[in-house]
Amino acid sequence: MEIIESLQWRYATKKFDNTRVLPQEKINILTKAFNLTATSYGLQPLKLVVLHNKEIQKELTEHSWNQQQVADASHVLVFCIENTIGEEYISKYFDNVKAIRNTSDDILNPFKEQLVNSFKNKPADEITNWAAKQAYLAMGNLLTVCATEKIDACPMEGFIPEKYDEVLNLTELGLTSVLVLPVGYRADDDMFAGFKKVRRSINETVIVL
Amino acid sequence: MEIIESLQWRYATKKFDNTRVLPQEKINILTKAFNLTATSYGLQPLKLVVLHNKEIQKELTEHSWNQQQVADASHVLVFCIENTIGEEYISKYFDNVKAIRNTSDDILNPFKEQLVNSFKNKPADEITNWAAKQAYLAMGNLLTVCATEKIDACPMEGFIPEKYDEVLNLTELGLTSVLVLPVGYRADDDMFAGFKKVRRSINETVIVL
Repeated sequence: MEIIESLQWRYATKKFDNTRVLPQEKINILTKAFNLTATSYGLQPLKLVVLHNKEIQKELTEHSWNQQQVADASHVLVFCIENTIGEEYISKYFDNVKAIRNTSDDILNPFKEQLVNSFKNKPADEITNWAAKQAYLAMGNLLTVCATEKIDACPMEGFIPEKYDEVLNLTELGLTSVLVLPVGYRADDDMFAGFKKVRRSINETVIVL
Repeated sequence: MEIIESLQWRYATKKFDNTRVLPQEKINILTKAFNLTATSYGLQPLKLVVLHNKEIQKELTEHSWNQQQVADASHVLVFCIENTIGEEYISKYFDNVKAIRNTSDDILNPFKEQLVNSFKNKPADEITNWAAKQAYLAMGNLLTVCATEKIDACPMEGFIPEKYDEVLNLTELGLTSVLVLPVGYRADDDMFAGFKKVRRSINETVIVL
């Protein structure tokens, strides 16, 4: 039940200790874990920005409904989706499968064609939505990893993606921000740390068949 | 780096050992972890169906592009979203906050009104999409919990939600299925277990600023 204790320990940190910085080893765990996230078809339509710059963090706070966690956290992780998932992107994925697993074209090509055609026929907003869901999956993974690593975090949907994209030059990189995760250490006086968790009862949220 | 080893250990299991059953203790960890998932505003617009019934699993396989994992897995977890997130649902959440934290109405009511109005003005498909994203977050959490608990799992978007809803009577319960996760133990001869992971390099997926 160690993992449950970790999940009980975590909470959406409202006040970070702005004097403490996560060691590089912890950041490496987060970036490795991000990259190991399962994604739909294995396509990884995601990138993670790891921001550790007080000036930019302060600027982004204004675009995050003034939530001070963005300014005070040791690092701010910005989950981004790739803006273009087309034939070129999908082909690169299959090149990667071939390079890593030495799978033959005979096996890969039919699946590759099928996937390219499937994405060619999807409306752009459907692809965006599909990619965004993978970002939530990655965030779900990282929140749990943070919990096991005793890294405090505050998952955030409340920010202005257009402003983040502008400040971080994400559009030029072909990316759009979809989720933000300040990480670091809770402040000693964050009163939210002591609050009881509010959850529906398991009898209400779990149906056994 | 123990958590990274766990994430390396996991893979999308293609063949489950259909003779092995997860002990109740492991199922309890999964349901508790599900219920502890962070969700937007803490609203938990989700329920988890825990299915352990070979006959129904076999029936659902037909509605899962014949992926045998649904039939062979020890249990099948079906992530569902609540179909109606309105004033009643949101009020119940605040009742729960009050009951658990003893927070006063003076503090809760303004936030409650704001949230009720915000959801009143959202188109239905936007709420559905918002809820579905929380299901992905929960799945991201559970995939990592499975990895730490050495539970094999196969995350699946490839199934027919309407059929799942019908077979499991989800519509009557006010629910819609959005994700499926067969869990159990990998078969000794699942050749996918030995495949190298295909991931983009971290230099490609992580941007340090």
